[in-house]
Amino acid sequence: MPRLSERTSDLYASPVREMLSVAGRPGVISFAGGLPAPETFAELKLSTPPPDLLQYGPSEGEPELRARIAEELRAIGIATTPERILILTGSQQGIDLVAKLVVDAGASISVETPTYLAALQVFRFFGAQVTAMDRGDPAAGWSKAAPRLAYVTPTFQNPTGACWGAAERIALARACDAHDTILFEDDPYRDLVYEPCERRPACSWLERASFIYQGSFSKTVAPGLRLGFLTASEDLFPFLVRLKQAADLHTNRLSQWMVLQYLNDPGRARRLERVVSFYRERRDLFAAAMEQHMSGIADWSVPPGGLFFWATLRKGVDSQALLALALEQNVLFTPGCYFLADGSASSSMRLNFSLVGPDAAEQGLKIIGELAR
Amino acid sequence: MPRLSERTSDLYASPVREMLSVAGRPGVISFAGGLPAPETFAELKLSTPPPDLLQYGPSEGEPELRARIAEELRAIGIATTPERILILTGSQQGIDLVAKLVVDAGASISVETPTYLAALQVFRFFGAQVTAMDRGDPAAGWSKAAPRLAYVTPTFQNPTGACWGAAERIALARACDAHDTILFEDDPYRDLVYEPCERRPACSWLERASFIYQGSFSKTVAPGLRLGFLTASEDLFPFLVRLKQAADLHTNRLSQWMVLQYLNDPGRARRLERVVSFYRERRDLFAAAMEQHMSGIADWSVPPGGLFFWATLRKGVDSQALLALALEQNVLFTPGCYFLADGSASSSMRLNFSLVGPDAAEQGLKIIGELAR
Repeated sequence: MPRLSERTSDLYASPVREMLSVAGRPGVISFAGGLPAPETFAELKLSTPPPDLLQYGPSEGEPELRARIAEELRAIGIATTPERILILTGSQQGIDLVAKLVVDAGASISVETPTYLAALQVFRFFGAQVTAMDRGDPAAGWSKAAPRLAYVTPTFQNPTGACWGAAERIALARACDAHDTILFEDDPYRDLVYEPCERRPACSWLERASFIYQGSFSKTVAPGLRLGFLTASEDLFPFLVRLKQAADLHTNRLSQWMVLQYLNDPGRARRLERVVSFYRERRDLFAAAMEQHMSGIADWSVPPGGLFFWATLRKGVDSQALLALALEQNVLFTPGCYFLADGSASSSMRLNFSLVGPDAAEQGLKIIGELAR
Repeated sequence: MPRLSERTSDLYASPVREMLSVAGRPGVISFAGGLPAPETFAELKLSTPPPDLLQYGPSEGEPELRARIAEELRAIGIATTPERILILTGSQQGIDLVAKLVVDAGASISVETPTYLAALQVFRFFGAQVTAMDRGDPAAGWSKAAPRLAYVTPTFQNPTGACWGAAERIALARACDAHDTILFEDDPYRDLVYEPCERRPACSWLERASFIYQGSFSKTVAPGLRLGFLTASEDLFPFLVRLKQAADLHTNRLSQWMVLQYLNDPGRARRLERVVSFYRERRDLFAAAMEQHMSGIADWSVPPGGLFFWATLRKGVDSQALLALALEQNVLFTPGCYFLADGSASSSMRLNFSLVGPDAAEQGLKIIGELAR
């Protein structure tokens, strides 16, 4: 074996990857991924994109698209300008760029617990010391050693589906202001809202701390386009542009054009309503099946938005052990341990409700319920 | 300013970026970039891509495209399989992934001198000690301290346009074999060939060393699609897939589909001939204008392929000082210092001949020639 970077030692074990490779087999019912339903994808008009989009483009992204996104962000309370919008090759790229910008070996990063698995992976890869945040008191322990960065998904979080209240968002913003901690807010699910709840970005309450706020079109247009965006405080933005340029020069210009068409489509609001109705119905059927098959053996809340249920087995049943049994019956979910900063055993599990149709969902939950019993 | 990563200190100065921002102004004649001519872009049929491409896709890329690329690589001497092809969001991404895989702070990387500016940038960003390779004797000095990785573009290099002979390619492969140095061969220009010359990849001569070989569709299809690919030895490939997944999950699927159509098009060979003829003519006109305006004040070779002339001013004239004067007259080129591992002053300059039409090229070279005199 040739000499590789030290960070490579983190790349060996990938049980999630191996588990997901089973998901595509015929007959498998998978609650494990985070895939949106194909029924919801936008119809994309591909006929005649402007031919000048075939040339190299600006690292920041297409000016018209950036202007449109800046407008939308201002409408939800984020003070930004078109010049501070960076188009991303999916919002996963934003995590990579921010990690490059902020994380040295040993740098302290505060995350929700549980949190998004692929963010944990990237932060760790760059050597972060990841610590768990208490949502009720985000700055607990920060006075001793404030983290460089706090990474959160306050709106319909992956994996829990939870939505922070206004007081919690404000408390986090205050804590970041007080400790000079960069706030990195990831907001890919905000449009998939099934109940009235607070969605104003935590970043919008900041008074002085630096921030990055990012969003995605994977859930409302189509993930295959790989299109996301970020905005950041003035001190950070120029660095992120240079990191973007070094990562892939710029994002695919046809995707940018297609998403601009989507944003400018007068039928967009009605389309989004239909998408939300589709998911709300799927969530409600999933909730009914959970009630039927998991009552008494697990606890969960019905998520007010997003794509996931988060259920915790009673009696301390280890969800990884349960998964081993479920796999034998062709049912998959993601065990909670993968979403924890310390990777410790967990009796929780993430169940995706967006991809699997109602009948298969009912059948899969029945199997999980029986096995857990 | 919040605390950022140490590597960020490398992101401050970007004179090239600032210089290129001038290139878009009306009336400017720019030889500074590396943009292909829009006249050469493939006509892409965008009518009806399969709708399932809108969903998330595999990190490795689309199976059919990978199979097609593996076939092409086997035909040029690289022993690979579809399972060892990774589709990239442009070949710039390959440099980022390989740097993550190989480069720790202080890791030694051997590069040609001059070499591709954005590769230097990425290697340095991850903390590499970059040393200059002697093309005539690549392993000179390696017995004392062998580099972890050798990065080369043997075919129509950026910036010089030079093409290595077979003996040089073999010598490099032997050196990598002997010193357990990973060979990273970047080959984005190989199809833009204007004279008969050796193009067999250096990687194809390896007997035991690990390698990465990468290519791009930016020069033969269209850069706006951001589509490249790599193959790697079996020991490295799985890591690169995981790094790709962490970077952007997977590459845009519509681009992958379009490039597959291009590769399967029976008119492809004829189309490529037309592209090559177009560039050969542009190169020849550029060579004539060089002869007319730069004779006696600079030395250069006519490149057998690729997109660049590399000219060295006589009497040690500093090309950065010349650029300052040229900018005042709205003419741009890239000074040689940016392509050097040690960033030292240089009397060389890179002149892109693919983008600017013949009349403007003649006019721009006339101005440069007069200023240099």
